[in-house]
Amino acid sequence: MQQVVTFGEIMMRLSPPGHQRLTQATSLEVAYGGGEANVAATLAGLGQPAAHVTCFPDNELGQAATQSFRRLGVDMGHTVFRGPRLGLYYLEVGASLRASQVRYDRTGSAFAELDPADFNWDDILQNAQWLHWTGITPAISAGAAQATREAIAAARERGLTISADVNYRRNLWQYGQTAQQVMPELVAGCDVVVCGVGDAEDLFGIRPEPGAESSFASMARQLMDRFPNIRQVIATRRDTQSASHERIQGRLFNGAYHETPYLDIAPVVDRIGGGDAFLGGFIYGSLHYATPAEALRFAVAASALKHTIPGDVNLVTVAEVEHVMQGHTTGRLVR
Amino acid sequence: MQQVVTFGEIMMRLSPPGHQRLTQATSLEVAYGGGEANVAATLAGLGQPAAHVTCFPDNELGQAATQSFRRLGVDMGHTVFRGPRLGLYYLEVGASLRASQVRYDRTGSAFAELDPADFNWDDILQNAQWLHWTGITPAISAGAAQATREAIAAARERGLTISADVNYRRNLWQYGQTAQQVMPELVAGCDVVVCGVGDAEDLFGIRPEPGAESSFASMARQLMDRFPNIRQVIATRRDTQSASHERIQGRLFNGAYHETPYLDIAPVVDRIGGGDAFLGGFIYGSLHYATPAEALRFAVAASALKHTIPGDVNLVTVAEVEHVMQGHTTGRLVR
Amino acid sequence: MQQVVTFGEIMMRLSPPGHQRLTQATSLEVAYGGGEANVAATLAGLGQPAAHVTCFPDNELGQAATQSFRRLGVDMGHTVFRGPRLGLYYLEVGASLRASQVRYDRTGSAFAELDPADFNWDDILQNAQWLHWTGITPAISAGAAQATREAIAAARERGLTISADVNYRRNLWQYGQTAQQVMPELVAGCDVVVCGVGDAEDLFGIRPEPGAESSFASMARQLMDRFPNIRQVIATRRDTQSASHERIQGRLFNGAYHETPYLDIAPVVDRIGGGDAFLGGFIYGSLHYATPAEALRFAVAASALKHTIPGDVNLVTVAEVEHVMQGHTTGRLVR
Amino acid sequence: MQQVVTFGEIMMRLSPPGHQRLTQATSLEVAYGGGEANVAATLAGLGQPAAHVTCFPDNELGQAATQSFRRLGVDMGHTVFRGPRLGLYYLEVGASLRASQVRYDRTGSAFAELDPADFNWDDILQNAQWLHWTGITPAISAGAAQATREAIAAARERGLTISADVNYRRNLWQYGQTAQQVMPELVAGCDVVVCGVGDAEDLFGIRPEPGAESSFASMARQLMDRFPNIRQVIATRRDTQSASHERIQGRLFNGAYHETPYLDIAPVVDRIGGGDAFLGGFIYGSLHYATPAEALRFAVAASALKHTIPGDVNLVTVAEVEHVMQGHTTGRLVR
Amino acid sequence: MQQVVTFGEIMMRLSPPGHQRLTQATSLEVAYGGGEANVAATLAGLGQPAAHVTCFPDNELGQAATQSFRRLGVDMGHTVFRGPRLGLYYLEVGASLRASQVRYDRTGSAFAELDPADFNWDDILQNAQWLHWTGITPAISAGAAQATREAIAAARERGLTISADVNYRRNLWQYGQTAQQVMPELVAGCDVVVCGVGDAEDLFGIRPEPGAESSFASMARQLMDRFPNIRQVIATRRDTQSASHERIQGRLFNGAYHETPYLDIAPVVDRIGGGDAFLGGFIYGSLHYATPAEALRFAVAASALKHTIPGDVNLVTVAEVEHVMQGHTTGRLVR
Amino acid sequence: MQQVVTFGEIMMRLSPPGHQRLTQATSLEVAYGGGEANVAATLAGLGQPAAHVTCFPDNELGQAATQSFRRLGVDMGHTVFRGPRLGLYYLEVGASLRASQVRYDRTGSAFAELDPADFNWDDILQNAQWLHWTGITPAISAGAAQATREAIAAARERGLTISADVNYRRNLWQYGQTAQQVMPELVAGCDVVVCGVGDAEDLFGIRPEPGAESSFASMARQLMDRFPNIRQVIATRRDTQSASHERIQGRLFNGAYHETPYLDIAPVVDRIGGGDAFLGGFIYGSLHYATPAEALRFAVAASALKHTIPGDVNLVTVAEVEHVMQGHTTGRLVR
Repeated sequence: MQQVVTFGEIMMRLSPPGHQRLTQATSLEVAYGGGEANVAATLAGLGQPAAHVTCFPDNELGQAATQSFRRLGVDMGHTVFRGPRLGLYYLEVGASLRASQVRYDRTGSAFAELDPADFNWDDILQNAQWLHWTGITPAISAGAAQATREAIAAARERGLTISADVNYRRNLWQYGQTAQQVMPELVAGCDVVVCGVGDAEDLFGIRPEPGAESSFASMARQLMDRFPNIRQVIATRRDTQSASHERIQGRLFNGAYHETPYLDIAPVVDRIGGGDAFLGGFIYGSLHYATPAEALRFAVAASALKHTIPGDVNLVTVAEVEHVMQGHTTGRLVR
Repeated sequence: MQQVVTFGEIMMRLSPPGHQRLTQATSLEVAYGGGEANVAATLAGLGQPAAHVTCFPDNELGQAATQSFRRLGVDMGHTVFRGPRLGLYYLEVGASLRASQVRYDRTGSAFAELDPADFNWDDILQNAQWLHWTGITPAISAGAAQATREAIAAARERGLTISADVNYRRNLWQYGQTAQQVMPELVAGCDVVVCGVGDAEDLFGIRPEPGAESSFASMARQLMDRFPNIRQVIATRRDTQSASHERIQGRLFNGAYHETPYLDIAPVVDRIGGGDAFLGGFIYGSLHYATPAEALRFAVAASALKHTIPGDVNLVTVAEVEHVMQGHTTGRLVR
Repeated sequence: MQQVVTFGEIMMRLSPPGHQRLTQATSLEVAYGGGEANVAATLAGLGQPAAHVTCFPDNELGQAATQSFRRLGVDMGHTVFRGPRLGLYYLEVGASLRASQVRYDRTGSAFAELDPADFNWDDILQNAQWLHWTGITPAISAGAAQATREAIAAARERGLTISADVNYRRNLWQYGQTAQQVMPELVAGCDVVVCGVGDAEDLFGIRPEPGAESSFASMARQLMDRFPNIRQVIATRRDTQSASHERIQGRLFNGAYHETPYLDIAPVVDRIGGGDAFLGGFIYGSLHYATPAEALRFAVAASALKHTIPGDVNLVTVAEVEHVMQGHTTGRLVR
Repeated sequence: MQQVVTFGEIMMRLSPPGHQRLTQATSLEVAYGGGEANVAATLAGLGQPAAHVTCFPDNELGQAATQSFRRLGVDMGHTVFRGPRLGLYYLEVGASLRASQVRYDRTGSAFAELDPADFNWDDILQNAQWLHWTGITPAISAGAAQATREAIAAARERGLTISADVNYRRNLWQYGQTAQQVMPELVAGCDVVVCGVGDAEDLFGIRPEPGAESSFASMARQLMDRFPNIRQVIATRRDTQSASHERIQGRLFNGAYHETPYLDIAPVVDRIGGGDAFLGGFIYGSLHYATPAEALRFAVAASALKHTIPGDVNLVTVAEVEHVMQGHTTGRLVR
Repeated sequence: MQQVVTFGEIMMRLSPPGHQRLTQATSLEVAYGGGEANVAATLAGLGQPAAHVTCFPDNELGQAATQSFRRLGVDMGHTVFRGPRLGLYYLEVGASLRASQVRYDRTGSAFAELDPADFNWDDILQNAQWLHWTGITPAISAGAAQATREAIAAARERGLTISADVNYRRNLWQYGQTAQQVMPELVAGCDVVVCGVGDAEDLFGIRPEPGAESSFASMARQLMDRFPNIRQVIATRRDTQSASHERIQGRLFNGAYHETPYLDIAPVVDRIGGGDAFLGGFIYGSLHYATPAEALRFAVAASALKHTIPGDVNLVTVAEVEHVMQGHTTGRLVR
Repeated sequence: MQQVVTFGEIMMRLSPPGHQRLTQATSLEVAYGGGEANVAATLAGLGQPAAHVTCFPDNELGQAATQSFRRLGVDMGHTVFRGPRLGLYYLEVGASLRASQVRYDRTGSAFAELDPADFNWDDILQNAQWLHWTGITPAISAGAAQATREAIAAARERGLTISADVNYRRNLWQYGQTAQQVMPELVAGCDVVVCGVGDAEDLFGIRPEPGAESSFASMARQLMDRFPNIRQVIATRRDTQSASHERIQGRLFNGAYHETPYLDIAPVVDRIGGGDAFLGGFIYGSLHYATPAEALRFAVAASALKHTIPGDVNLVTVAEVEHVMQGHTTGRLVR
């Protein structure tokens, strides 16, 4: 099987044990994660070869981050070791009506200061069938945006499938260009896009038509009109009850509209990476199931399971995801 | 801003990790807390200057307890270091239908053996606008009761607002006087009183009138008739589903009856200090909001958040409490 | 009081902290448990003298397992120290729709290779009034089956009450005989049997009669017809909502059919040993209450509490179980 | 084999992890220990039946302490459950030139308030061959002193060997009698006494004669003259290099003077209980070796090993002690 | 007593447990420290009022760092909350021949980007008698250097004693000016300077004269000639045996040369902050002892004790330091 | 660079925290290791491509073990997933005169029951330049011995360098053949052999000649006479002071005799894998240095560093090893 290649920053994640607040912590649990690398790790865990491309400082923290994903079977052989520091994020795990909180400390990271010339995409994509990126990467720096642009171009040239999670975070865009300037060109090169109604309006000025079949479908239809390469628009819908209780649904528009039943998650063990697990699941599903509806059900089952696993990454087998996908959601003890 | 001053015992709290029983524990988590000091710490965390007055043994345990509240910004400068030992309590954290259990080991503590003459209330209250005490303090020893009496007298003389949580615990009163003998005189000096229907009957023989508007309002009205200084009677009502699931409501009577909607807390991370957070929130609210109804809503939101935070003390910002107060209770991830 | 004697394997239980998956674990929590020993420990904790009979390797792991149950007051004086290794099991604690998973590593254990001649049942049962075994023991090896056979025979001769949890696990029976060959003779010697409808069909080919009062009662009636020594058939019924939320009910047939209300358990802290707690509770109840219905209610309350306690063993007092048995299931804080 | 019976207080020991100071601790490691019970546990671990007699509060902390020693094989069947609280001690583990520090919190404990009438020594000593006590017990309260007196009397009547560790701690004697008043009568009933030169002077006014063979021997000779029942005086000599490095030697006088070579311990893992391990080893050695010199060498080897084991109690086998006793002190890896 | 005021950056310190390497860590222990703040905390712990002046980001990490030093009694009331991020450092704790390693991640911190105008030194130094700074602060940024300059000027004007630890770290000076350009002017304003022979040569081109009484004294004499305000030059000399074994000596030149005996530290629990403890001890000693020689002995004893305490800060009492200062270095158990 | 390929069992290692005994442990730290895989991991960490060949059960424990070495950069692509269970070993970490103890539980492991036909050595060795095995592998089972035989044959045919650590452990050889029968043929195929004087006598009946230059050289000379393929015999000599203090020296005979100075290691953090680090270092040194003497010095420096690192594997860089190799053994703090 050919690889799925992902590109983006990996950060060290530091979180107080249990539900402590950061000011209480005398120790912090360490994990490594990033929206794109989490997708690669999900895929590798499911048996689908995957590579992640990133940039780390050439020190023991860059080593630790590399090892963390290499452990999970992700091909980290294209890592560029150069630059000042490893980006961080702090995570407080909320409960009930207290939200979980993420505090980023990624300014001036090795990834933010990457040199696009360090990435030879023709080499990198040699054994690849799919390229995945997110809207976070071009938000970080002009260099990261340029590298994304080049990756997409190289991937299109080689005929890869390209997916993106548009993932608009306004306060990330600090280097002088706006998402509205940068993203359209990048999204135009994609086949599969994760985009919710809010992001579509913020990024592309697309609003669901009044009285449309569903606001999601209406938005997706317009998005596909605007960017003809896009064949599928997908999203998770969260019906969040509390920081400890989520209900999630998968949605897909590919001309027709599909949605899955809601899955109930209580308690939520770890909310981070739930979207990445959805997308990783969808890529896996797209490559291994006959229909987009099945891929979508696989994706939402994978995402639900992720919420029960500590860390950014979804550590599940295909059999476990399929078990939930088949409606076994009562979690009966397995001996 | 002038200080809120609280007076009472601080104990070391020892609890097994997770939901272990005490007989299973090979380590105990350490925190420090006390019903009055928790109020001061809540206030300090919200930006309201607060001082706590107490008595510790002059050893490293007294130091540790002092440091624990000084860390949170509570003025501990009036601490008396004298006496035999630091009081303790053991906490087993229950789950579902198994109750959490508190086992006190406070007999013979430095606080129980305090000498009222060690506390110069005129000095202590110099920069104060509010004095807060609870019914636990006069229950501990004749000396502690006397110190409470003197604190209230000094506070009234200086024109401070005085609040009390009557908090009747029958088995604490062991030194030869009963709560029924001691409390009326003390409560008579207060402006704001936390008192539920049960405590009112036990302590003051006050029973709601049959057919009254509400049993709480009826009790409060009688309490205010009996003790004319009281301007507000408040309480939380708990609709406890299980050790892991609480529903709480705030109630207030100030001539008129006010109540908040119920807030749902599931899971409960740490039940201890929920009442203190309510009172701390109410004091903060009384000092910063225009109406008692707002103060009450702030108080119950603060209390609800406390249930999600490990330890006795409510570690939240004004913004976080107001967020819940405004009805945002789904705890959506904050990035 | 005379002892309840149990017989079976004790394993070391290794589980990752919290909800980690095994591949994430850098440490494993250690406990010791076994379906029969858990019953003895429950009983000892309730004040009922109990002894457990087993076989351990003569090394520090056998010592640790012995100490673990001796700590709880179980008489471990009949332990045989001989043989190759201590059996293990790994437990992943699931959450929500992710199941908890047990992975056994018990092949070639000291217990599996026990020599029946090492157990002098006349000696062992000298102070006993009750013998308890489960269907796991005769599944492990021919030797273990033979020892079970001899224990039952000796117990019948001495007039003890004999109980069994049939607990059919197909993949355990690997030594050349099937459960269907071995179990009937053993069950024939019992007075009290834990058996669900599924196990009755798998082991004894008994199917509830169509249109029967209840499928459980119908099965039980046939079972008692087949094995006239049986006076009571009991079972728990699980209405599992998720790995974190169980609802359990107790059922009993002794000519008449009894059932308890469902008890709700959310969250489930530790699911393992829930059935053993039920049976331990039932034995205790049978010895200390006037009616089987009371024994059953005690048993199901005990089992519900077990789900809130880490480890295999139910660490509760009679007062705590009776509190739940009387309907106090809201877990209000105890001071 | 008949039991060795020990009598004294067991406390909960709370110590910060690693070399933290108490003011730094956010958790405390829990162990249970007491100078006399540690001897019983050492003996039980070596295979010598042993019982410990004590008094605990009738709560989960008393249960936990009971279980802790029952786990180690000590017969705890004579425990009296009555009284207010479990005594505690806090232990800071020093390093290098910073001393370890013990802070007691045992005032008002169940043991201090024991009623001598609760202990029926004729029953307790029924299967005993040896009684051991220490000077700490009569220091705690008049009741504890009286119970010690009665235990010694009963033991003498039954012809048991009686040993005592005089262990003089001036600040413990707070109940109105001095060690100098109480101890001589008690020591007079003993056969084996642990007593150093300093304690002999403080308690009995005995000073080594100038120019004597050795100060220890001179003291011991006088002690035996004063108390003719004493047949052996023993002691450890510590040549302390730092909190992390001890050198210990065993000394014995039984008419003749014996001493062992020094054993070097670096690092010291846990200094507490080193003396109890010495005495437990000496009792074991006295019962199982031909000569006092061998018993002494066994004792000092046992004590040295204790310094490498966390907690109050010496968890070693006879084979391990004999290995060191035979001069194998390089600790080469055992596979 | 008037305050000692210190000025400098405080970082979060993240270290793997035990002797793990960073790549192994699944959790990191959290502490807060900085070369100047550590001095203030040492002094506050010894009972000497102390304030620390710094700049933190206005978020929960800045709060946590503030609380950490407020807990220890340091006046943090002058903290400026502004700027991007909290500086970090990672610490690997070595052992034996493997060195401990510090990896800084402080670029772009709130302190590095401080605005000197935010610090009103006349206000800050109002109750101060002593100002302390180190050569790290002016190395961080032009702003930090300017603030140092202004602090020294204000302190001189008010007649405070000024001390500095020159602490030259070449790779810190990245903002366009060299230490050689900046430091002389700053050091010229100081009364007490910590400076070793190497730093004197690197920073000031001062070389010990051949054949001088001692190289340290020769250097110090020249330094005092060059900067006439300097009255005392001090230093610790380390005779490092391994990462686990240090020997330290204090040196002082004030016209005459003084040195202390070496103190032996084995094992070293935590090497970080040893120099700060020395300086904090020296300031305390200068304020409380009659002679510089006593101050020096106090300082080196304090520093030695620091090596046995986890974290950056020396948590010791005056009595403990004086105990070592008096030659009690064997760390005998204290009960 | 071509790979170094190692072959052997990997076990899960379970060790109590700190210096606890196994009977005290309530948690066990998890690591994965094996004498041969540790060599591969050392090499991968030093930048030398390495692959390890082994057999795991096809479950999450086999996955975890695979991930553990994949994380370190070892090519685990040849792993065979088949068979019953993962082998284990328990490690108690001793201190001072108490030895560390290893308890194996590897009987019936997937590796022991491997089928030699599952390993296609021509494939496996395709990119290899060196094959390494140890005497443990042929000791485990006839199948493992046969696979070793085939690996050596294939390696010789391809002209690889072959090294072996003879590592004789008598009690491992349980399958019907003796080391004396099996090992000579295997060793005959090797170029580099780790063998001490004791193993040479036990396995090959070779005794140093009386009066020889050195017993090691004499033995090595005879060994090379017996097995003419052997070009180098190497060994570490341990001058063990205690479980916490080792001194090690490297020795080599290649016609001439070489030895390194002793390196002192105090404290020993983790003794396990010290020999594997030596060999890994020697292979690295042989491939990267001009002379065997340098390779030997690199090897002993690497081994010394390993003793300071938790776990089986040496996590060091070339720069760190060379630093020690150049005589920097005082472990001065690196900033």
